Amino acid sequence: MKLLRVGTAGAERPALLDAEGTLRDLSGIVDDIDGALLADEAALGRVRAAASGELPALDAAGLRTGPPLARIGKIVCIGLNYHDHARETGAEPPAEPVVFLKAPDTAVGPHDTVLVPRGSVKTDWEVELAVVIGRTARYLESAEDGLAHVAGYAVAHDVSEREFQIERGGTWDKGKNCETFNPLGPWLVTADEVPDPQALSLRLWVNGELKQDGTTAEQIFPVGEVVRYVSHFMTLYPGDVINTGTPAGVAMGQPEPKPYLRGGDVVELEITGLGRQRQEFKDA
Amino acid sequence: MKLLRVGTAGAERPALLDAEGTLRDLSGIVDDIDGALLADEAALGRVRAAASGELPALDAAGLRTGPPLARIGKIVCIGLNYHDHARETGAEPPAEPVVFLKAPDTAVGPHDTVLVPRGSVKTDWEVELAVVIGRTARYLESAEDGLAHVAGYAVAHDVSEREFQIERGGTWDKGKNCETFNPLGPWLVTADEVPDPQALSLRLWVNGELKQDGTTAEQIFPVGEVVRYVSHFMTLYPGDVINTGTPAGVAMGQPEPKPYLRGGDVVELEITGLGRQRQEFKDA
Repeated sequence: MKLLRVGTAGAERPALLDAEGTLRDLSGIVDDIDGALLADEAALGRVRAAASGELPALDAAGLRTGPPLARIGKIVCIGLNYHDHARETGAEPPAEPVVFLKAPDTAVGPHDTVLVPRGSVKTDWEVELAVVIGRTARYLESAEDGLAHVAGYAVAHDVSEREFQIERGGTWDKGKNCETFNPLGPWLVTADEVPDPQALSLRLWVNGELKQDGTTAEQIFPVGEVVRYVSHFMTLYPGDVINTGTPAGVAMGQPEPKPYLRGGDVVELEITGLGRQRQEFKDA
Repeated sequence: MKLLRVGTAGAERPALLDAEGTLRDLSGIVDDIDGALLADEAALGRVRAAASGELPALDAAGLRTGPPLARIGKIVCIGLNYHDHARETGAEPPAEPVVFLKAPDTAVGPHDTVLVPRGSVKTDWEVELAVVIGRTARYLESAEDGLAHVAGYAVAHDVSEREFQIERGGTWDKGKNCETFNPLGPWLVTADEVPDPQALSLRLWVNGELKQDGTTAEQIFPVGEVVRYVSHFMTLYPGDVINTGTPAGVAMGQPEPKPYLRGGDVVELEITGLGRQRQEFKDA
């Protein structure tokens, strides 16, 4: 299933996109799409049953798409998780996953405006495969078990300010948590529709020019291993999100003058089967 | 006012501790103590009015105390923010605040059991002054304005695993987000009862032995400046928490063999006017 949330920010209603591409209202079946739903087999079963029956159609015209998940608990991010991206940043491939955090309040809809922070001169793009957790994961023993705790997948844009991230002291978090810095969606695609998360193409364009063109086959630590590994440092709960890293092609990896983002730029990104995002950047 | 939340984990009710030390039930006045309440002057006014009138007394005996704030949005942490602590870790005092994040799900009650992570050999203590945000803070211009966005204060225990934090690659977040790693409370003390947040004593004992004995006068970046600074990198919302750093005396700063925490250890901590915590540590 392709689950989504549509409506004005903070007042989205749950919906699904059916096999014919029609937007269907789920608000008569479930309150919202969140961790509680993903952990509730019975409720998910009702959604599945409804999906094959008669659900009211919604007119998608003019309807905003929100992030496909409400009440996100935490956003865990994996850094330098693609061989090609590690090379372009001049970093050694890490011996174990690099972990940092984004606050849940950075998540916005896939087509919402993204704000270039005041004083920013190095705002950068990163297309990423986001993993949505469906079952509590704690000290998992295998990558297979890691995959079994994944409810679904989505496109994430891990927007990053490189000066704040690297040159201002402290950890990367300072350049990762600016407001609107994590567009998510359009859909939460349930795991049954993504048979191999290591065979997905990721692409990103800036002002129509292709900048990133990668595949999750290049991930140093694949999805199941990432979930297993993270579960040894923190407990993952239903409704948590993991951004699993970005392939090569970010602004930071390019020759001077590096083409960092400014107000007026337009970024589009997509992952096979998970949909497409488009954001206009604007000065904060 | 001293606001708190009492009851079993996940089902706490709002309460206050009155001037006579009697626990009073607030559940007839407000649903819970959270960012929405702190941002709502009218609701806070009702709580204040009720506090000086007749509220049902609660029998504190056998009643668990939860974290004094529900639905925490994010926990922002300031590293190396005390002159004496920077010295003991061998670090230069930072030129600007060091920022990292803890997930809201690390917050537990002030007397809850804390889990030593599996495989941990360097679990450490840190008593900290926690600041609770009451108004949305975005690109603030002055430290005075920073202070004006603070709703109240609490004791936080920023439990840390130093090997995960420093020796496992990536950012500090890996050693800061283990489950139960942020005891908070017992009370959220409203800002009007803390006239000078830079004149508070912080103390911490391990198995009855005094380990930290500091004062917020030693903070490199005082509370108002911390709020102002952070608001330029991320938007702070009502119900967000900032842990403002720890004074000297952590295990990491002591001679070998460093006395890291193990299952069975008991940590107690307190800050002037903000109450006292006591945790038993147990192997996860």
